Amino acid sequence: MQEPPFSTVTIYGPGLLGGSVALAVRDRLPGCELRLWARREQPLQLANSLGITHTYTDALAAAEGAELIIFATPIGAFEELARLILPAISKNALVTDVGSVKAYVHRTTGELLTDRGRMFIGSHPMAGAETQGLENATPELLQGATVAITNPHGVAAEMEQRLADFWQALGCKPYSMQPGHHDRAVARISHMPHIMAALGARNALPGDVPLPDLQRLAASGFRDTTRVCSGAASMWADILWENDVAVRQVLNNCVNDLHRLIFLLEDQDRAGVLRWLNGAKETRETILQKD
Amino acid sequence: MQEPPFSTVTIYGPGLLGGSVALAVRDRLPGCELRLWARREQPLQLANSLGITHTYTDALAAAEGAELIIFATPIGAFEELARLILPAISKNALVTDVGSVKAYVHRTTGELLTDRGRMFIGSHPMAGAETQGLENATPELLQGATVAITNPHGVAAEMEQRLADFWQALGCKPYSMQPGHHDRAVARISHMPHIMAALGARNALPGDVPLPDLQRLAASGFRDTTRVCSGAASMWADILWENDVAVRQVLNNCVNDLHRLIFLLEDQDRAGVLRWLNGAKETRETILQKD
Repeated sequence: MQEPPFSTVTIYGPGLLGGSVALAVRDRLPGCELRLWARREQPLQLANSLGITHTYTDALAAAEGAELIIFATPIGAFEELARLILPAISKNALVTDVGSVKAYVHRTTGELLTDRGRMFIGSHPMAGAETQGLENATPELLQGATVAITNPHGVAAEMEQRLADFWQALGCKPYSMQPGHHDRAVARISHMPHIMAALGARNALPGDVPLPDLQRLAASGFRDTTRVCSGAASMWADILWENDVAVRQVLNNCVNDLHRLIFLLEDQDRAGVLRWLNGAKETRETILQKD
Repeated sequence: MQEPPFSTVTIYGPGLLGGSVALAVRDRLPGCELRLWARREQPLQLANSLGITHTYTDALAAAEGAELIIFATPIGAFEELARLILPAISKNALVTDVGSVKAYVHRTTGELLTDRGRMFIGSHPMAGAETQGLENATPELLQGATVAITNPHGVAAEMEQRLADFWQALGCKPYSMQPGHHDRAVARISHMPHIMAALGARNALPGDVPLPDLQRLAASGFRDTTRVCSGAASMWADILWENDVAVRQVLNNCVNDLHRLIFLLEDQDRAGVLRWLNGAKETRETILQKD
């Protein structure tokens, strides 16, 4: 059996994504010592029953001797966690995360760790679901998922490669990019679609239509288009918050584009409306067309 | 075997929806004479091979003796078709349609037929897909679909009941409503989600992010949220066009609501952003919660 890229891995946060990473390590890297930390005991009992035996509520003890440390708590908790466990982080260990925004994480947690001589590289597995918690975690969630890897603090290339090997071993596709590019890209293809789903749902209700009429007419189009907005609102509020410059830029573009469509309808320009719709279809195909 | 609600049914237009209705009549109402009209021969050969043996390219001949006539062409073609086949429509026959907007259809085709002493009641099966054409038609498309029934011209209640029985026999759930309520409701739960999907797709691309970065990061959220906009753009341009007053009203609400979110982000009001997102989730649940 090949040696795992990291012999001891500690995951902080037993949520959907952290839990799924833990289960993938359990399955795919059996030679690796896997540790899971949670603030409370309760999810750790479930973890034990899933075969994750090294569980901790003591954050410092969990970091001691770990070669790879993965932050999978809400992003807003990273910095405090980093401060807390700093004395236990080896200078040979790598710290990474699974957060949905990267510039903010590097500006806060990454800077802090780098200033204290620790190594931090960001990760973002493009994997998610509307469910939450370890009870919904599954290694399948990560299969084939792109993992953006961001290394603006200049950690040595060989360490970045080990991190890429780790994600690849879990069935992911690692892909290096700049934090700013990452954040502007996810603002467009993840955060904005989420907002569009929410906008569609929010504006379905008000007005002079009886609710039962709306309920009976709601079909698969409404269900699918608004699906993502049934996800954890609090996590999403953090994400929009932490990526607010890129998000606001895209939202302003959307406002302008909606005005354009309203104008085309007011102006009875059917050909223009058709061009507007075809533009959407073509862009979608361009983006979903992988090379 | 029970007698079918109509002994002879003619469907004009062999597209996805017209074709699916035809196949459902074939399967569910074997005692009914089923006729299918198309402008061209080609789809009718496919219809023959699917067991639909009474096929026509002569629109007048197809209407002769029919008890129920269903318009399933693009909505923009209804009025001309009605004028053309008028002499062949019996005064005891019922004409209906499967169009996605209702006020426009009643204002044009419905008025025309009513003025000439023919009976017209609107229908809108809430069933669709991103695919098109008879080759993708399936009776399954209609299973469990709500069919809005609109009868503003005052056709006798027993005829409306026969139409409801017909849809029910095909596996649908008929539901009577006012055309204006229908159009405002579908503007909200069908047309607007479509526009949100298109808006999300259109505004994913422009900007200073390399295309390969976007392509690699596009995950299931983007795919699902924008799915509906891969449907037939030309049909959707007609729909927005024919329902433009209701659609513009909802779009203006969306613009205001986007401004609200942008303001909350600018104002660093995290609690407000969370409320905004929770509002979406709650509205979605309210609408998808059937009684």
